[in-house]
Parts: sequence; structure tokens; C-alpha cells
Amino acid sequence: MKKLQIIKIGGNVIDNPTELEKFLSDFSKVTDLKILVHGGGKVATELAKKLGIEQEMVNGRRITDADTLKVTTMVYAGLINKQVVAAMQSKGVNAIGLSGADANTIKASKRKVVDIDYGFVGDIESSGVNVEMISVFLENGITPVFSAITHNGAGQLLNTNADTIASALAVALSKKYEVQLNYCFEKNGVLKDVEDDNSVINIITKDSYKQLLAEGVIFKGMIPKLDNSFDAIKNGVSAVMIANSKDLIKITNQNGNTGTKLIA
Amino acid sequence: MKKLQIIKIGGNVIDNPTELEKFLSDFSKVTDLKILVHGGGKVATELAKKLGIEQEMVNGRRITDADTLKVTTMVYAGLINKQVVAAMQSKGVNAIGLSGADANTIKASKRKVVDIDYGFVGDIESSGVNVEMISVFLENGITPVFSAITHNGAGQLLNTNADTIASALAVALSKKYEVQLNYCFEKNGVLKDVEDDNSVINIITKDSYKQLLAEGVIFKGMIPKLDNSFDAIKNGVSAVMIANSKDLIKITNQNGNTGTKLIA
Repeated sequence: MKKLQIIKIGGNVIDNPTELEKFLSDFSKVTDLKILVHGGGKVATELAKKLGIEQEMVNGRRITDADTLKVTTMVYAGLINKQVVAAMQSKGVNAIGLSGADANTIKASKRKVVDIDYGFVGDIESSGVNVEMISVFLENGITPVFSAITHNGAGQLLNTNADTIASALAVALSKKYEVQLNYCFEKNGVLKDVEDDNSVINIITKDSYKQLLAEGVIFKGMIPKLDNSFDAIKNGVSAVMIANSKDLIKITNQNGNTGTKLIA
Repeated sequence: MKKLQIIKIGGNVIDNPTELEKFLSDFSKVTDLKILVHGGGKVATELAKKLGIEQEMVNGRRITDADTLKVTTMVYAGLINKQVVAAMQSKGVNAIGLSGADANTIKASKRKVVDIDYGFVGDIESSGVNVEMISVFLENGITPVFSAITHNGAGQLLNTNADTIASALAVALSKKYEVQLNYCFEKNGVLKDVEDDNSVINIITKDSYKQLLAEGVIFKGMIPKLDNSFDAIKNGVSAVMIANSKDLIKITNQNGNTGTKLIA
């Protein structure tokens, strides 16, 4: 099996032109097959504010009404995605920007209303990932760049969490490739002490994760990412890394104790 | 050679949800290989207005400053492109939305400043069209949907006239396919009398075009489209149609006197 690096880049890196430029430059040097997944950063929130579209948050999650969906489609699938793709092309990477609707690469279902109506938010399963089509791109030297927008197959675009897209892609593509999933953001990894950038936990196993959770060591915001990651490992992904975007080359080469490595 | 239909859809159709829906439904029924090219309609102008980005026009053409480029990238390559792609997917067309940066499909050069600085506007030649890459899509059952955004290969996105994109694609792809270029808009074709929708000129040859120009019959706004078209025919495109978007099925089947047919 060929090795495939799936790399999720966080919003704070997208928001910082210098960091983003360095990251894309490093990305261009990754020699394995590769896929980038990006979210949106602050640009969508700022645009919504300028347009007077109120952002309703429930339990820290954004409600995606019709106007908010338009804004995120414009910013994620339009502005950020095309800027990243153009920058990659200038660095010799034959990137293609995609939403899940494009070539039907990722199908999602609108989240069912239980207590809260999240609006046009899509949930995906790995069965929604079009492995054959994505392979056509990879085998033709094309590097997919996914924005956090999917569709339901019935004409509806859906806002979809970029971490979830990355892990769904990783699980589905592990049928055909040896997949390493990399979550890159502005911190050095999973930290023992959220205030101390040097307190990186280098290895977390499924068992040590349970212990860390029980001890309350894991920062709340990291839990969905880690749950996603262990799910991915259980379902065929060979390795998951959580690390600083500056360390992309090191983590894709797996040399040394950089970032946090999750293992079964 | 396989037949390839390149279909440019005008802004007035994009702006009208009912017309657009009917058009996309007809488009899904075109059985030849096919490519859609779309511009932007009023949405970009309205968004720029809401954001307080002044639109400077010189000789009826929009100056694309950095902020205007962001707006057109968001609206053309983001919102409209993804909405069209999602709608097509729901109709069984495996569409992929593209800017010229995606998979390096269309490279352009920033228009040189002579008297006027048009800003981030791209001019393309048929050599800027990546025939091999577009063929990979077509041969894998994927229908490209191009927005009016290209890139220069050095990281810069560029606003590019959608009519020009359609004719550059047509010329370049005529090396590999039997290409019919179709300009679809809200009128029934090239009209003898711009006030009379039934005054369609069914056939224009290169010679009769000269005569019509000399007689002042051709409406000013149509001249660039017609010049582009005769250029395309000279350079290998087998047929060019200018017609109402409602008549898409008729013109791609070339049955009957519908729209205006341009011939050598």
C-alpha cells in the first residue's frame, strides 16, 4: 500500500499569513501522497458580522442558518480554498480545491433535530467518502484540498466540521492506502498543562487516554479531536499525529519526539 | 473524435432561480461530454455594495482591485459554483467546480497596464488551458464547471471574463474533441432588432458578419462575443451557437432553426 498523509490545518494558521505561507511551503515538500483539509478561521465570522448576519451559538457551537451557510460557502469553499490552491500551484503542488459536492467526493446528512436545530450542518460517515473518485485524483498526481463544506446529494450544501472530514477521509481511504492522519495547529501537541507549551504528551495509547481523561488532564476542547482520532485508529488508520503546524515535515517523516502520537 | 459541448451560461440566468433550475435540468440531459462555464450575475455587485467596496468602472468594465477580487472569488468560485455543482449532483451529473487554479486547469496573465490599470484581471490564451488535465476529468465521467476565476501560476488569482474562458477552452480542447461552443443567455440569439425577440438571425457566416457590422445591425454588446466566436471557429471549434438558455437541448442537438449558428 502507498502511504497517504491526510493533513488538517487549524483556523489559527489560516488566519496568519506568515504561518500559512511557511506551512504551505513545508506541505509542498511532503513527498507521500497527500490531502489537505482546512476550516475557516476568523474570516467567516468577520464577514458575517459585516453583513449583519447574527451568529447564534448554542453550547459553543454555531447554528448554521441559510445566510450563515452562504457566508461559510463563500469563505471556506471560495476565498480560502482558492487562495490556498493558487499558493500551492506556485510551489509546484498540483492542488485541486474541493467541497464534498465536487465530484461527489463527500456526502453527508443534515444533522437531525433532537433538542437543538443546528441548521445546515452535515454529519458524515466514512461510507460517505467517495474513495474511487479521490483515488482518481491521487493517482493522477493531483493533491485534493478539502474545505469544510459537504452536500447531501439532493442539492443541499452543508457546513461540516473539518476535523470530522479529515478523520472520515482517513478511515475511508485506509482501505486503499496506508494512511497517516495529522492534525496541525498552533500548539505543540496535546499538552499536560495547557499553559505550558513544552508539556507535550508524546504518546497517548487508548488506555493512557482513559487515564488522562479520568485525571482531568485533557483540555476539554481536545476531547472531540482525540475521540475522532482513536475512532480512526480503530478503523484502519495507521497513525494519528497532533502537532504544531511548524513541525509538519518532522511529523510526516515520524522522526523524533515531535508532537503527540496516538497509537492503539 | 468524441463530441464535447462547452456551454457558457449568462449572469441573468444565474440570477433567476427558476430559469437556472430549468437550465440545469436540461443540462443534465445533454448526453455528449460537457463543460459548463458561468460568470457571476448580480450577486457579486450586491455583496461588494453591502461591504462598502466601491466598484470602479472604466469604459463599462469593472476595475478589479484586491477587495473586489476577494468578493468575486467568494461569489463566483465559492457560492455560485458550489450551489450549481450541488444542484447538478442531485440531477445525476457528476460535476466538479473549478477555478483555473484548481488542478492548474487555466493559467492566465495579469492584464498589462497600457492606459488603464484593470487590476487583478487575467487574459488567457488557449495555450493556458491544461488539455491533459481536463481530459482526465472528462474521461472519468466528471463534468467540469468553471467559474470566472483563473490564476497566474505564481500564486495570484485573477478575475477572467467567462465568455473568454469558454472560447479558450473550446479552442484548446478542439485538439482532442469535436467541440461545439454554446453561449446561452436570456435572448433568443443574435437579433436583427434588439427590441424584437423574434428577429433572430439564424445563421451568420464570417462574410455576413462583416456586412452586419458595416450596416450597424449588430448590437454593440454582442461584438466581443461574436469576435471570440469567429476566432474559435478559425482555430478548430466545429460550431458556435448563441441562443436562449431555454433552448439548450435543441441547440446541442442542432435540430431546427433555434438560436444563431455561426459558421466559417
